[in-house]
Amino acid sequence: MADSQGPLDLPDDHLFGLGNLPYGVFSTADAPDRRRLGVRYGDQVLDVASAVDLHPRTLSAPTLNPLMAAGRTVWSEVRAAVRQVLTDGRAAGHLLPLDQVTLHLPFEVADYVDFYASEHHATNVGRIFRPDGEPLTPNWKHLPIGYHGRAGTVVVSGTPVRRPVGQRKPPTEPAPLFGPSVRLDIEAEVGFVVGAPSALGEPVDQDAFRDHVFGVCLLNDWSARDLQAWEYVPLGPFLGKSFATSVSAWVTPLEALDAARVRPPERSHPLLPYLDDADREPAGLDLRITVSLNGHPVAEPPFSAMYWTAAQQLAHMTVNGASLRTGDLFASGTVSGPGEHQRGCLLELTWSGQNPVQLPDGERAFLQDGDEVTLTAWAPGPDGSRVGLGEVTGRVEAARQDGASGS
Amino acid sequence: MADSQGPLDLPDDHLFGLGNLPYGVFSTADAPDRRRLGVRYGDQVLDVASAVDLHPRTLSAPTLNPLMAAGRTVWSEVRAAVRQVLTDGRAAGHLLPLDQVTLHLPFEVADYVDFYASEHHATNVGRIFRPDGEPLTPNWKHLPIGYHGRAGTVVVSGTPVRRPVGQRKPPTEPAPLFGPSVRLDIEAEVGFVVGAPSALGEPVDQDAFRDHVFGVCLLNDWSARDLQAWEYVPLGPFLGKSFATSVSAWVTPLEALDAARVRPPERSHPLLPYLDDADREPAGLDLRITVSLNGHPVAEPPFSAMYWTAAQQLAHMTVNGASLRTGDLFASGTVSGPGEHQRGCLLELTWSGQNPVQLPDGERAFLQDGDEVTLTAWAPGPDGSRVGLGEVTGRVEAARQDGASGS
Repeated sequence: MADSQGPLDLPDDHLFGLGNLPYGVFSTADAPDRRRLGVRYGDQVLDVASAVDLHPRTLSAPTLNPLMAAGRTVWSEVRAAVRQVLTDGRAAGHLLPLDQVTLHLPFEVADYVDFYASEHHATNVGRIFRPDGEPLTPNWKHLPIGYHGRAGTVVVSGTPVRRPVGQRKPPTEPAPLFGPSVRLDIEAEVGFVVGAPSALGEPVDQDAFRDHVFGVCLLNDWSARDLQAWEYVPLGPFLGKSFATSVSAWVTPLEALDAARVRPPERSHPLLPYLDDADREPAGLDLRITVSLNGHPVAEPPFSAMYWTAAQQLAHMTVNGASLRTGDLFASGTVSGPGEHQRGCLLELTWSGQNPVQLPDGERAFLQDGDEVTLTAWAPGPDGSRVGLGEVTGRVEAARQDGASGS
Repeated sequence: MADSQGPLDLPDDHLFGLGNLPYGVFSTADAPDRRRLGVRYGDQVLDVASAVDLHPRTLSAPTLNPLMAAGRTVWSEVRAAVRQVLTDGRAAGHLLPLDQVTLHLPFEVADYVDFYASEHHATNVGRIFRPDGEPLTPNWKHLPIGYHGRAGTVVVSGTPVRRPVGQRKPPTEPAPLFGPSVRLDIEAEVGFVVGAPSALGEPVDQDAFRDHVFGVCLLNDWSARDLQAWEYVPLGPFLGKSFATSVSAWVTPLEALDAARVRPPERSHPLLPYLDDADREPAGLDLRITVSLNGHPVAEPPFSAMYWTAAQQLAHMTVNGASLRTGDLFASGTVSGPGEHQRGCLLELTWSGQNPVQLPDGERAFLQDGDEVTLTAWAPGPDGSRVGLGEVTGRVEAARQDGASGS
């Protein structure tokens, strides 16, 4: 497959070949404050503004936001130009080794929305928390359930995550206890990054998905299950989620995932027209995720099993007239498949701690201080190639020393 | 009270006298794109950057954010300087009539959090929705319940609000219906605007409230009760709230509300140390709100009746290590007092539509197209003076024509 091979003789199956070309923001040790747009190619980073002679103001920005705001025509144009300079040799002086740059949060997050789109995840959680009731709430098959999260605590892969403190109330206690979370969890998710904004009052149809969404990242929605369980009725998750959400340093353009598009699972309930996708282009994505804990794979959630697609989520999120801004981030919710090893969080994998995950250094019901969680993923590209998503990783730091007292 | 009277001979009881001096952002017809910081004085607007010879970069910004970020010492310094130029006559050439400027959203909203801090409101809502259960959830007296809302749809007073469309499911229907909301409501709230940021991982103590919070605005959290009722279990409100949140064009500095500080209601449950405020400075605020519908007052909610203070909300919001950013906006939740005419939303005022509000042109269970809702408020100042909050107003526009089909 010569087409996916660049001048640097990347192996055909390299996850970051010419078919991928994800965007990020980097700096170098000699100019740590100078953030620049980069494109990952193999294990190198292309300095985009220096290599590509297009839209200099947009490409010399310190975040992806101006490029994201520029819209689909510019996205395609810049992508083609990057591909060209990597193919014709002009990139040579503009590539830096990946291990010699620092990667930053690639875009300024506007609003962050988290969905709940895996039927398997929602069913498992329902069974764990409401063993005697219906696992899915009555609305679940009619709309993609979502809620707003904290945009200001979205951090780039590699940022340490301090164990949160807060209130939890075990059923045996008469009043809430205070201290570090004892049920710290991960959620393996896929994030979608909005580029082109929309006007207040105007819904965005599913078919306009590719005009608005710039690309895809991996996302770990760290979750303190004990804080969450006590606080979330009636207005939803708050402090159990708001302490940190990690995203990959690389945003893969939608174009790179064209070959990974699949039809989502069959719908068991008829959908309202704005959500119906039976006669539309397939909007599911065949992303294969691996969740690793201290380097050991513990789960392989398949994104193709998600009930609700990102296009449906976008249509739903705006059907009431809510506008989109450049930098809006919406995430899929925990990705879980039907299999026991396809579950994207420890709550499910250990069935609320009853069946701990086995690691060489012992078992885990939930995360311990020092644990490092890494999500990776790849998708099929054209002609048997593969497209990698940038990894998202984070290590758990101990809670603040004074966190036990509530003072 | 000569001290509250400026060179323009404002009456002693003027709501926007020298004791108030709220900040906003304005432009004029001859330079509509040039947004400038203004301070309201009576019915005039002071062009701050031109009148005050301090921090020129900060004060010539097109939003309040740089001033808000500058911190409490600068806030006091600028406020004193504004007061000085208004007192000594130097302001004369820098005042514009209020009716000759356009007011804009005064700050860029970072994260928007909405609390649920009125015991009367939460109890009423609980009684309406769960007539056979306990009105308050078990967590309500232990923590200030809150959730994240949509920052990107916070709009300035005067912005029309288009009736949202979406899914609603009357109990008698087997499946959700789609169309314009038929239970469009308001929520009279008070918003707190964060100036100085905090570091990720570091909680902000109640006593640091005045170091971080820049000022106060009025806020109308428009709510589509039918959309909200169908969607909100289990992850909280989403489209029922995200279509618009209106804020006043003026942000009143905390300093202006010193005389309005009151002790909050007695707590019925012991609080964890980070929330306990028995031995702290009083952090309640004696704000008297009026809700008007098409010019007719329909409710007078007393902010002094709120169970949870904004200082407690700030401490809670950050106790898990979540950081603050300049521009974070957190709102009180609907302000309702114990009286029937002290309720801050139509859901309560009409008891879910059973007892409509009477207006000259007919009755209202919920809002009709064309209705205009205005919130005003004042607080006691020193020596019998009053401090007004800027009004927040908005008129309901009809839903999109194609909103009935769901196409």
